Amino acid sequence: MPVATADDLGLTRGDGVFESVRVVTAPDGTSTVGQLDEHLARLSRSFAGIGGPTPDLAAWRRLIDEIVGAWRFAGEAILKLMITNGPGVLPGAPLGIATVSQMPEAWISAREGIDVTLLSRGYRSDSFAEAPWLLGGVKTLSYAVNIAAEQEATARGVDDVIFTSVDGYLLEAPTSGLVAYEDGTLVTTPTGATGILGSITVDTALDGADEDGVETSSRLLRPEELETVDGAWLLDSATGVAPILTVDGAPVRQNPDMTARLRHWAGFAS
Amino acid sequence: MPVATADDLGLTRGDGVFESVRVVTAPDGTSTVGQLDEHLARLSRSFAGIGGPTPDLAAWRRLIDEIVGAWRFAGEAILKLMITNGPGVLPGAPLGIATVSQMPEAWISAREGIDVTLLSRGYRSDSFAEAPWLLGGVKTLSYAVNIAAEQEATARGVDDVIFTSVDGYLLEAPTSGLVAYEDGTLVTTPTGATGILGSITVDTALDGADEDGVETSSRLLRPEELETVDGAWLLDSATGVAPILTVDGAPVRQNPDMTARLRHWAGFAS
Repeated sequence: MPVATADDLGLTRGDGVFESVRVVTAPDGTSTVGQLDEHLARLSRSFAGIGGPTPDLAAWRRLIDEIVGAWRFAGEAILKLMITNGPGVLPGAPLGIATVSQMPEAWISAREGIDVTLLSRGYRSDSFAEAPWLLGGVKTLSYAVNIAAEQEATARGVDDVIFTSVDGYLLEAPTSGLVAYEDGTLVTTPTGATGILGSITVDTALDGADEDGVETSSRLLRPEELETVDGAWLLDSATGVAPILTVDGAPVRQNPDMTARLRHWAGFAS
Repeated sequence: MPVATADDLGLTRGDGVFESVRVVTAPDGTSTVGQLDEHLARLSRSFAGIGGPTPDLAAWRRLIDEIVGAWRFAGEAILKLMITNGPGVLPGAPLGIATVSQMPEAWISAREGIDVTLLSRGYRSDSFAEAPWLLGGVKTLSYAVNIAAEQEATARGVDDVIFTSVDGYLLEAPTSGLVAYEDGTLVTTPTGATGILGSITVDTALDGADEDGVETSSRLLRPEELETVDGAWLLDSATGVAPILTVDGAPVRQNPDMTARLRHWAGFAS
């Protein structure tokens, strides 16, 4: 059933924002939704980033209760929340959409480990400083480059991508954040001037690490550091924690103990 | 009437392409469509750029004949053509959409002259070399940054934007190409490694200039060159030729004779 008009700015201009939220459904058909507060907060921040009004979060929660309640398939699913800036020709109210669909098998199997390739994102690591129109940290519907990068990964026979900056730093993956364990510290790459999207799963995992006395830090990493780290992972709300096995064919040291701890902190312990 | 499903990849990921084509309707209600062959060719190239199949151009022409024939309002309008990669959850055929709507008044008044501001696009002028996943020259639906830049221009009290590279060159405008007249040569900025979209209107105008013996060239321009050029313009399929009056408040030399010639070559002579 179509829901967006031909002039909806989300469709015609990618002028909208979204969140993908994990839903786990028990054999009896009851579901739990992962970190909905954080996702709704980021959805609101993103929408403000493209000039949208404050979403009615109570209405969103009612909608989400209704559609998640109607989803009865045991297993893992993705709740996708979208808000667009609405019709463009005859301007109207924003369009909100929520869908639930089965989690793709590839996102589940990524937990066993992934091979990645490095691809340039074309930006410098400070390109987003004082340039809010570049929408750094805003999770917009304008995701064509992320899709194209994932297709390039497939063409190269690997599972995922880590984007690099033109000045030679690792940034993030198209739909995940990067974490590495180096010299006893869990390192992630910084938001802000890099344009990297703040990852709810990375933040949750590293908050847990902090509480358990594991050092954490946020700094730019060079590709060559992946040759010597004691584990590296891509984290997102759907897969959770995906250990990086190889980078452009070069093996990355595995750290199953830290993988398990990251999963525990991120709320993905089995 | 909604036309796109909630899982359409054009909506959920900006994973689609588009063209905006000028339609001029006479007082008797008959319309002419500007450079449709060129727009359909670019639409096909763009769709190939995001991995889509070859569009059925004969079917597109029939659709366009039908909706343009039904449009009877004298004046100028925009025919928008879009193709998305179709539904994402249950993959299906691409979605094609054509709409006609009145040309916005601001696009018409831009012909009187525009004030512009320079905004960084975050990329280097060679960021797109050997990086097809960045979709340089592909007119995708992922236009959120272009919209945000236009909003920044409005916030600054000006009409439009010229994007700059982080290494200090002028690139293009969010929805137009740049032409300047310098030392007897009409200069535009190069496609390819810059990621600049090949402009049908710029190409048409410069082809006309070539035929009339006016020198043309394609090269990177520095912002400071706008202080000494003998005219600078933004060109696109809707407005045609918009003379740049000021750049961040600094006046640009006007060249009404060349403005008229560019309009003639581009097919926008009144």
